[in-house]
Amino acid sequence: MHRTKVKVLEDVFDANSTIAAANRADFDRAGVTVVNLMSSPGAGKTTLLERVVHDLDVRVGVLEGDVQGTYDADRIASLHVPVTQINTDPGFGGECHLDANMVRSALPQVPLDDLDLLVIENVGNLVCPAEFKVGEDVRVMVSSVTEGEDKPLKYPLMFRTCELVLVNKIDLLPHLDFDLERFLANLDAVHPDVPRLLVSARTGEGVDAWRDWLVRTAEKEAAAV
Amino acid sequence: MHRTKVKVLEDVFDANSTIAAANRADFDRAGVTVVNLMSSPGAGKTTLLERVVHDLDVRVGVLEGDVQGTYDADRIASLHVPVTQINTDPGFGGECHLDANMVRSALPQVPLDDLDLLVIENVGNLVCPAEFKVGEDVRVMVSSVTEGEDKPLKYPLMFRTCELVLVNKIDLLPHLDFDLERFLANLDAVHPDVPRLLVSARTGEGVDAWRDWLVRTAEKEAAAV
Repeated sequence: MHRTKVKVLEDVFDANSTIAAANRADFDRAGVTVVNLMSSPGAGKTTLLERVVHDLDVRVGVLEGDVQGTYDADRIASLHVPVTQINTDPGFGGECHLDANMVRSALPQVPLDDLDLLVIENVGNLVCPAEFKVGEDVRVMVSSVTEGEDKPLKYPLMFRTCELVLVNKIDLLPHLDFDLERFLANLDAVHPDVPRLLVSARTGEGVDAWRDWLVRTAEKEAAAV
Repeated sequence: MHRTKVKVLEDVFDANSTIAAANRADFDRAGVTVVNLMSSPGAGKTTLLERVVHDLDVRVGVLEGDVQGTYDADRIASLHVPVTQINTDPGFGGECHLDANMVRSALPQVPLDDLDLLVIENVGNLVCPAEFKVGEDVRVMVSSVTEGEDKPLKYPLMFRTCELVLVNKIDLLPHLDFDLERFLANLDAVHPDVPRLLVSARTGEGVDAWRDWLVRTAEKEAAAV
């Protein structure tokens, strides 16, 4: 009887990780740095992109993930940035997150060779998007101060697996019962010393630092490939 | 050859619907009206409950759904309301929603015979909670004005399947670029004339109407059984 020695690799049965690695290889080959941008619904992902995409020193494209519609994609496209929409409802059954295969299915529409940076705006949700790699180099999450101080403790995987936290809507701090120090302590409890930027997409406060972080990250990843 | 005539019932293969119906039967038998309360993370579900639970003319209990922790349950319990926690992380693998079986597994801890009203506070998420019945009589969703006017269009199932929309954080309207009329038009586009209450959990505005709606709903459902 012939026996084949099977070497079981970690994640070998995880189709999502396999496809995410294939996406990542395509991104690396094209020299594109990929950011997976995540948050609750309405935390300000699209507005924070609108604030910077016209003013980056690198060539940027956007992949929009939504259950339905092209509302955010239309906003980004109006800024003359190449944008591709993934709807998780008609094609994938109302999924609450992007997965690697959804991203892979969109790649033929993404002009990778003309980009240095691709921002994947995930579906608004603090749970499942964190569980699915899509081939990204880095993860950025947006947490709005209107959501309360307890969010890092209640959704720890999301806060733990990101490389940058954008604390958005800080213009509203005078009008909220939000304790910024307590939020930052909760953040450090689940992800000690993760880089964080205090920003207001509405007033523009902190947006320069967010733009600089994006450009620096794109350049650093490009140099590392 | 013997043939059995199989009558295919709608939902007959959907285990969640079967278990939801069993939950509903238990609730009806005990004379308990059940509200499934849903929203984005941080929209104000718990605070809106804190505002009214001490002041209802019916006996209320709360079932808390969270990925991790007992932060909201502790807040409700401090008001001397019977509360049961479901964590979707250790028991169910980090689920982004409650399903009927999770609720069923918690029922032995819920003192149904001592309640008129049970509020199930779902996991903060605008997608999957709307896809899973848990045995509720009615669905209430909270949409915060800080989340933007486009949410009904982007998450239509959630807005379409609820009996009441609480439009929360209206105290922040003077500080936001939020067009309330446009939000309400978007809401009517996906769920025409759904009852809606403008509230502020922070200032208490509209909270009386929310309390009255809960009491009225509990009494109406009790009379209908």
